[in-house]
Amino acid sequence: MPPALYLIPVEIGDSPLDMTIPSGNLRVVREIRTFIVENLRTARRCLRRWDREFPIDECTFHELNRHTPAIEISGFLDALRRGEPVGVMSEAGCPAVADPGAAVVEIAQREGLRVVPLVGPSSILMSLMASGFNGQGFAFNGYLPISEQDKLKAVKDLEARASRLGQTQIFIETPYRNNRMVSFLAEHLRPDTLLCVACDISSSTESIVTMPAARWRNCRTDYDKRPAIFLIHRNDSVSDEKKEKKFFKEQNPRRERRNGR
Amino acid sequence: MPPALYLIPVEIGDSPLDMTIPSGNLRVVREIRTFIVENLRTARRCLRRWDREFPIDECTFHELNRHTPAIEISGFLDALRRGEPVGVMSEAGCPAVADPGAAVVEIAQREGLRVVPLVGPSSILMSLMASGFNGQGFAFNGYLPISEQDKLKAVKDLEARASRLGQTQIFIETPYRNNRMVSFLAEHLRPDTLLCVACDISSSTESIVTMPAARWRNCRTDYDKRPAIFLIHRNDSVSDEKKEKKFFKEQNPRRERRNGR
Repeated sequence: MPPALYLIPVEIGDSPLDMTIPSGNLRVVREIRTFIVENLRTARRCLRRWDREFPIDECTFHELNRHTPAIEISGFLDALRRGEPVGVMSEAGCPAVADPGAAVVEIAQREGLRVVPLVGPSSILMSLMASGFNGQGFAFNGYLPISEQDKLKAVKDLEARASRLGQTQIFIETPYRNNRMVSFLAEHLRPDTLLCVACDISSSTESIVTMPAARWRNCRTDYDKRPAIFLIHRNDSVSDEKKEKKFFKEQNPRRERRNGR
Repeated sequence: MPPALYLIPVEIGDSPLDMTIPSGNLRVVREIRTFIVENLRTARRCLRRWDREFPIDECTFHELNRHTPAIEISGFLDALRRGEPVGVMSEAGCPAVADPGAAVVEIAQREGLRVVPLVGPSSILMSLMASGFNGQGFAFNGYLPISEQDKLKAVKDLEARASRLGQTQIFIETPYRNNRMVSFLAEHLRPDTLLCVACDISSSTESIVTMPAARWRNCRTDYDKRPAIFLIHRNDSVSDEKKEKKFFKEQNPRRERRNGR
């Protein structure tokens, strides 16, 4: 196996291992003895789950998370510089996407070291697939601001971009605030803007539902404390004719006269 | 297996099946007899590759691509409406992301039918993982315009967004124009903007390289006729102090005096 920085995805839900991780990934992992991990305990547990015989005691683990001093990160790649394969694992999902793993990939790229991404589950991508939103363009925006006023501005900005560019806007929320986020979006999005809430991706309780914002007002599903992703998209099924009528209704009639339209 | 619209990823390179598709996906596929596919021939071939014994002759295939009349699409879901599982397969990678499959998912969502995304390879996500770019925010923009003038404007817009929002900008090009795209970006991006070119993802010839735009001018790699993804990101390793100096150097000195700065 060629020496490289292998990016190793981890399961994200309670789905069986054979539904989430290609079996060949374990073949790659078995050749690795140096791991850069977001959390030491969950990474060891994951390796044991994948392979009871995994020689964890022969391995070196470097913890890379928001507590890691920036100056230490480069040293994590010394094994790779010596020609040995090194693995990167986040707590769940694909490493180096919206998690601290990107810092070590950046260094590897700067030094011309080979980086190899393995296949695995991504709640961002899987929610996008199942939303029914046109995936020609999409943006992942991380967390929205916490304060109501800033959040409102952010939501309006995202809705405007979705409408103008046809770009699906994806964002996340701290799980215990999910219900509040659903109500907030139901109230502040335009009634016909499409909202998809994707929850417990890759779990037995998975639920991925798309409806116009107005219909989310009657939502009784409890999303709190469950990992969720929010996606918004303009409603292309509102015909152009209807859109035009609505547009003219919304115009100030005096202004219309002034403009001679 | 519960009736649902199953979104079934397909390999994207020449990597072995066990490196790209979780084995459990095949278990799901074996229960399905109705498929909505981007290309009939490649879909049949794929099912045969996955399982020599697959009862292709007992299956119904609906072709969904840009030639499919919009009015026919809804009918593809009749089996699901009767309570049978239905599969969606694109030519390569994850269905319903930047491909026509999204149209049928949209209808399923509108009718409250269950949609289940399976895990598989996505060149967009895998290139993002391996780019070393901070994945806190990213946008996929599809193809850029073809004319030089419009392309230049698009590239400048994307670079500005990457710089302002720290949002990685991802786009693609028709494979036979890849080399021209690399030269174009090397010439027109700011010299320190980071450019990642990810090529032949999930293949034995995979290459994912990130360098500042200026260094791509000396690039000798032949990317033509190979599937590639382009990613740009601001260069955060240029220290704030340097950025500030550069900023002041770039200012028009007369304007500076006028503003009293």
